[in-house]
Amino acid sequence: MIIKKITDLTKKEKNIIFNRNKMNFKNIFPTVREILDNVKNNGDSALREYTKKFDKVDIDDFKVHKEEIEQAYNKIDYKIIEAIEKAHNNIKSFHEIQLKNLKEWEVDNNGIKKGQIIRPIEKAGCYVPGGRAFYPSTVLMTVVPAKVAGVEKVVVVSPPNGTEGNPATLVASDIAKADEIYKIGGAQAIGALAYGTKTIPKVDIIVGPGNIFVTAAKMMVYGNNVAIDFPAGPSEVLIICDETANEEYIAMDFLAQAEHDPNSSCIITTTSKEKAEFIRNKVMNLLNNNVKRKEIINQSLKNSAILYGELEECIKLSNEYAPEHLEIITENPRGVLKDIKNAGSIFLGNYAPVPVGDYASGTNHVLPTSGCAKMYSGLSVDTFIKKPTVQELTREGLKSISDIVITLAEAEGLYNHAEAVRKRLI
Amino acid sequence: MIIKKITDLTKKEKNIIFNRNKMNFKNIFPTVREILDNVKNNGDSALREYTKKFDKVDIDDFKVHKEEIEQAYNKIDYKIIEAIEKAHNNIKSFHEIQLKNLKEWEVDNNGIKKGQIIRPIEKAGCYVPGGRAFYPSTVLMTVVPAKVAGVEKVVVVSPPNGTEGNPATLVASDIAKADEIYKIGGAQAIGALAYGTKTIPKVDIIVGPGNIFVTAAKMMVYGNNVAIDFPAGPSEVLIICDETANEEYIAMDFLAQAEHDPNSSCIITTTSKEKAEFIRNKVMNLLNNNVKRKEIINQSLKNSAILYGELEECIKLSNEYAPEHLEIITENPRGVLKDIKNAGSIFLGNYAPVPVGDYASGTNHVLPTSGCAKMYSGLSVDTFIKKPTVQELTREGLKSISDIVITLAEAEGLYNHAEAVRKRLI
Repeated sequence: MIIKKITDLTKKEKNIIFNRNKMNFKNIFPTVREILDNVKNNGDSALREYTKKFDKVDIDDFKVHKEEIEQAYNKIDYKIIEAIEKAHNNIKSFHEIQLKNLKEWEVDNNGIKKGQIIRPIEKAGCYVPGGRAFYPSTVLMTVVPAKVAGVEKVVVVSPPNGTEGNPATLVASDIAKADEIYKIGGAQAIGALAYGTKTIPKVDIIVGPGNIFVTAAKMMVYGNNVAIDFPAGPSEVLIICDETANEEYIAMDFLAQAEHDPNSSCIITTTSKEKAEFIRNKVMNLLNNNVKRKEIINQSLKNSAILYGELEECIKLSNEYAPEHLEIITENPRGVLKDIKNAGSIFLGNYAPVPVGDYASGTNHVLPTSGCAKMYSGLSVDTFIKKPTVQELTREGLKSISDIVITLAEAEGLYNHAEAVRKRLI
Repeated sequence: MIIKKITDLTKKEKNIIFNRNKMNFKNIFPTVREILDNVKNNGDSALREYTKKFDKVDIDDFKVHKEEIEQAYNKIDYKIIEAIEKAHNNIKSFHEIQLKNLKEWEVDNNGIKKGQIIRPIEKAGCYVPGGRAFYPSTVLMTVVPAKVAGVEKVVVVSPPNGTEGNPATLVASDIAKADEIYKIGGAQAIGALAYGTKTIPKVDIIVGPGNIFVTAAKMMVYGNNVAIDFPAGPSEVLIICDETANEEYIAMDFLAQAEHDPNSSCIITTTSKEKAEFIRNKVMNLLNNNVKRKEIINQSLKNSAILYGELEECIKLSNEYAPEHLEIITENPRGVLKDIKNAGSIFLGNYAPVPVGDYASGTNHVLPTSGCAKMYSGLSVDTFIKKPTVQELTREGLKSISDIVITLAEAEGLYNHAEAVRKRLI
């Protein structure tokens, strides 16, 4: 772990920090290409073949039927079902406000009406990681914005747990009102959603996080056949904090980030060397105690850093880093927020740790990583909505702008474009 | 050209219509990969090499300097400058309304504040086709939404015209307030914008239409390094019209679409066989006269069709086709509009031909083609804006949702996530 003054960072250290966990797809693209082509050409039988190979089970019918969903409710603790329901309500309500803030509009300028309408994407596929692990929260975060947006058919795919679907994944899918669920994971699941098989429908957009094979497959199918949300990588947090921040909380947030996976990153930027050292010591103390997932956390340290400098330098570094999660724990977090240019989701003050957004407050946890927050937003109802423009003109409206069309169309050599206007004004 | 009853279309005919002009990238991907890698590794010298090879000119300095822009104004007709200025004003005003309709918001639910903020992407690259042809309109359609969104650095790239920039392209870039202009085109220009060279800055998003090499390059650089708008293909229109439509206008719009390039498509759907035949005859009459760009139009006919059926069938076919441009010329176009699910930009009534949106009304003409309107929107200020979520909690707010976080985090095996919440509530 780097612990250093921001202005003293070497080129090599900056490279470790900013190019954190960039996934190297080059080596796996050929394997993924082969899987995708096989699924495209052989459909369900290719899915069965890869599920045998990678998940070590032979599944004949990938669809999860009603009975299996009903049984799933009996297989998990009622407390978990209740938590899923509460989380669902908060996530749904947040995304409903998002939708309410997307407005259709039209203006009328002297016979030229123009505006924008809102139309949901028709079919969406949600990839939910699984196998032995399970992520009901990711089901909610992908299915809910799609359903709130008005997507007609929302399809969940998730690797099987043995020959069955993971009960918590099934329950969350049911609560979120997913339309179909399939027990299939990996690049083969992405291929199925992109091209369609006899069993699994082709969708218009594929969203949700996955391992490097899933992400590579999403990037390879992306194009004029299917859209994707964005290529997501390992999780990360950047924390901007000053003297007023509670370093116990920050050290705990460090561990919470680092426990995700060995490639996770946690960058802490603070306003003094003393604070930086204090936080480092707190982290090390926690690690010397009997903390859970210690091995993963220890590996994440190599991608992590505690840095110090002027507040402006912390902000500048954060904007360059473009973190997935940004915690601002300073005397005046809203003042800092004004200068933030790039971040997936932002957590202000001592009482908004990232896990709140991961599960419960209602904001989405599928967020751009690896610097992608410079250009992408996290998952939202917007991800599942198109905004076609609409115009309607009167003859006089057309006449008033006909000179622009005719002059530019003819300058660009598109004579029949000009003629289409002239003919209407004879 | 197919002329047929919608319900009588064979599988083969449907395939021609719906899979119109799908670009086959497979054969050109290796060439484009080589160009991109060469630009990534060798920067400006690779750009010079490819410009010599493809544009047949040796350019040493790709940047367009102030003097060249000033001179450009003297090289084109004042009428064209004036038309560019008028078009610019309308496009700017439309996109300003778009921006005004994107709102930051925040709600406060018992100590849990959550909302969304708006931040522009910092650097955008606009690809504008060029060489002997020139498209000042495309300059406006790509640069204006970026500048209105608040993008700090907007870079225009366009193939050189000899060793110079095309004057109309330069003037339009200047009027639209592009920050930098470079005389470089093709896949090499996309590589320069994606990776950066000594001369050309790396950008965060690349937008704008181009030939198949440019589109392939955009798809290949797309990912966690740079975003793109969408992969654009040949232009297309679908027209839904009934007995009330003026078939002279429709025939003319058919030609205006077909003149774009030999791969353009024009699909007309109408409510009777008689109307279909009448339109076909009008098109053929026009083609037998001395129409301009006749050769291109004749080639486009192979991707075109005139179809008839019930109005509902026309709408259903249009939704399945997901046209870039949709004209609705019926007795009650707004009634039809309600049922439209997929379209890039929609033109209502007898006086809104597509060229109006291409140049003058203010709506954007960079639109999803080849069925992409099922999942993508046309270029807009949204393309250049991110919407990070923000939350701030009080201790009580955190307490009220702590059970959800703790239960789900522990169910998912992320124990330190739960601990980060617990520690704050001791």
